[in-house]
Amino acid sequence: MIAQHNHSYAEGAAVPPARPIRFENNALAKLPPTIAWDGDDRGCIVLLDQTRVPAEIGLRRCETVEDLWHAIKVLAVRGAPAIGVAGALGLCLGTRDARDRGLAKFHAETQRVADYLIGCRPTAVNLAWAVRRVQRAGERGPSDEPRDRWHAMFIEAHAILLEDVAACRAIGELGAPLIPLDGGVLTHCNAGALATVAYGTALAPLYIAHEQGIRFTAYADETRPLLQGARLTAFELAAAGIDVRILCDNAAAQLLGSGRVQLVIVGADRIAANGDTANKIGTLSLAIAARHFNVPFYVAAPLSTFDPQLASGDRIPIEQRDASEVRGGYLRDGVAADVRCENPAFDVTPASLITGIVTPRGIITPVTRETIAATFT
Amino acid sequence: MIAQHNHSYAEGAAVPPARPIRFENNALAKLPPTIAWDGDDRGCIVLLDQTRVPAEIGLRRCETVEDLWHAIKVLAVRGAPAIGVAGALGLCLGTRDARDRGLAKFHAETQRVADYLIGCRPTAVNLAWAVRRVQRAGERGPSDEPRDRWHAMFIEAHAILLEDVAACRAIGELGAPLIPLDGGVLTHCNAGALATVAYGTALAPLYIAHEQGIRFTAYADETRPLLQGARLTAFELAAAGIDVRILCDNAAAQLLGSGRVQLVIVGADRIAANGDTANKIGTLSLAIAARHFNVPFYVAAPLSTFDPQLASGDRIPIEQRDASEVRGGYLRDGVAADVRCENPAFDVTPASLITGIVTPRGIITPVTRETIAATFT
Repeated sequence: MIAQHNHSYAEGAAVPPARPIRFENNALAKLPPTIAWDGDDRGCIVLLDQTRVPAEIGLRRCETVEDLWHAIKVLAVRGAPAIGVAGALGLCLGTRDARDRGLAKFHAETQRVADYLIGCRPTAVNLAWAVRRVQRAGERGPSDEPRDRWHAMFIEAHAILLEDVAACRAIGELGAPLIPLDGGVLTHCNAGALATVAYGTALAPLYIAHEQGIRFTAYADETRPLLQGARLTAFELAAAGIDVRILCDNAAAQLLGSGRVQLVIVGADRIAANGDTANKIGTLSLAIAARHFNVPFYVAAPLSTFDPQLASGDRIPIEQRDASEVRGGYLRDGVAADVRCENPAFDVTPASLITGIVTPRGIITPVTRETIAATFT
Repeated sequence: MIAQHNHSYAEGAAVPPARPIRFENNALAKLPPTIAWDGDDRGCIVLLDQTRVPAEIGLRRCETVEDLWHAIKVLAVRGAPAIGVAGALGLCLGTRDARDRGLAKFHAETQRVADYLIGCRPTAVNLAWAVRRVQRAGERGPSDEPRDRWHAMFIEAHAILLEDVAACRAIGELGAPLIPLDGGVLTHCNAGALATVAYGTALAPLYIAHEQGIRFTAYADETRPLLQGARLTAFELAAAGIDVRILCDNAAAQLLGSGRVQLVIVGADRIAANGDTANKIGTLSLAIAARHFNVPFYVAAPLSTFDPQLASGDRIPIEQRDASEVRGGYLRDGVAADVRCENPAFDVTPASLITGIVTPRGIITPVTRETIAATFT
């Protein structure tokens, strides 16, 4: 896998010549960039196309904002932080030609492109947040010249990108001491480099520990129905040279009981004010089993994942997704067409089952309304 | 599904004309026979070919013992009780022509065919047990005529078949009161009619309750990696007219926490003297989550599943199966070839997490060494 990637990387015309924030000397050196701006202001956006990982490791160049919109739509780029960065860079891409017009036309075009991008995945909070932040940077100045305004947006988009890297790196450095030397770490879904610009959230401590020479085995739940663990987490950890094994989700309890795992760490979609955490379906099951076998259970998340307006997790509606995700692929002919499927997208793990939450500002433990509030003051 | 089955059932030349122990007026009436002897002593064995369920509901006729051996080998018939019955009937099929020879030749042929059948799946305890029991019946008489001896074997094989039906029916009648009216029942893997001659073990109480007019919803874990829940359990419950829904294994904890399930019931591969129960991988995870949410967790098993020689479950070695089962199908191109897989075939649920064990002799509860021993005296 790594060799295959290096091969295409060396030969491919699609490789970005300038990768200022790439990671030549660390755990991510062998992983293609999740998302990057390729070149100077005349450049374009380059993505690792995640629809085909790991069968194909291909870079996807987005020369127009329509290209990028489509890439977000088909989940070629996924993960809240990565989608936010994609939107931020996409707004720059989509307004570049307008910077040679008048200021009013430039702003009108910026508004149109921003709405267009946000409309691609209207429920992705991070996408709207990042696009609007870049748009506001353009509205502030620094002069009345559209070219200056566009340049301010371009800088803001890269600031978002670099902030994401910094937040993930901070999570990694704070969380790395949790990784058990010669032990095992279990994770679920993909909260890794492929879901962010770099490092990821739950996987960041694994990368930093690996850079520090800590040896451990990573276990990745395959994460039915869409298999992000088997497809993405296994791929990116293996590419970094980390010893990784996949297992069916239902084998995790036995693994936790075997004594081979000393840490469970997962990402989060949304964390309520009391610490209740919504994450990919299956997280709750892991947390319950980890508690049963006294294995520490950690969540890793940037501050933007916390929702202080949400008193507790029971306020989070559980989205039921299409049955075709369960029936699809392997099961295509395997389930009677008239049998209904339960397919909740995520579950809510109560704070009482969470040992700690690793944030860029420190590890919150114990997880209570008070310790969370203290992190934000 | 049911319509499709009825259709092929009416037209197919493969339908057994005589089905003395089939179930015309109950929950199983619409399900093809898992295994049956078709006709008189010149007949043959008919199986529902489970390799293609539910995509194709086809009966497989075994006219020779070689046909049957192959059917067992490819898992066209599966489940310990059903395999035992297949072996018992298979020994009759394979020795029928020898009954016209001398007694010595008849017994030599019986020995050869018995060894041949047992060698098909040498670790299947039930297969050896049933084949040897039929062989012994032939050795006992009633006369020195090979035809009489063969007939004694034929009767013994049908006794095993009928005993399996009776044991499952008894489990069903004893367990039916556990089924919650207008509630939900969660099961894992397939311990149903397709794993036995009829009714199954874990699913028997569901069928009997359904016959009694109890309305409930059955939830079937899909049961990765081989998806017996999604393929077989969903199929057979739907064929019986029971409201069934499938879910990914990792969604079970959330379902248990939702209050929609009042009973978990599963089968067993082996039960130690203290009640520790080995069953399909994923059972332990369910038991832990059920305890967490205070949902009763029951095991259903015939007496032959108990192993009084085994002091506790930690003596049971956990078989690791081939990684291709995890990688196969949907994941064929989805996992890097160099990523290792954990693929344990089953796990062990400690007796302390089991509310009760439903046996043909009654429900053992609480589950202790003493209550189990009392069941066998």
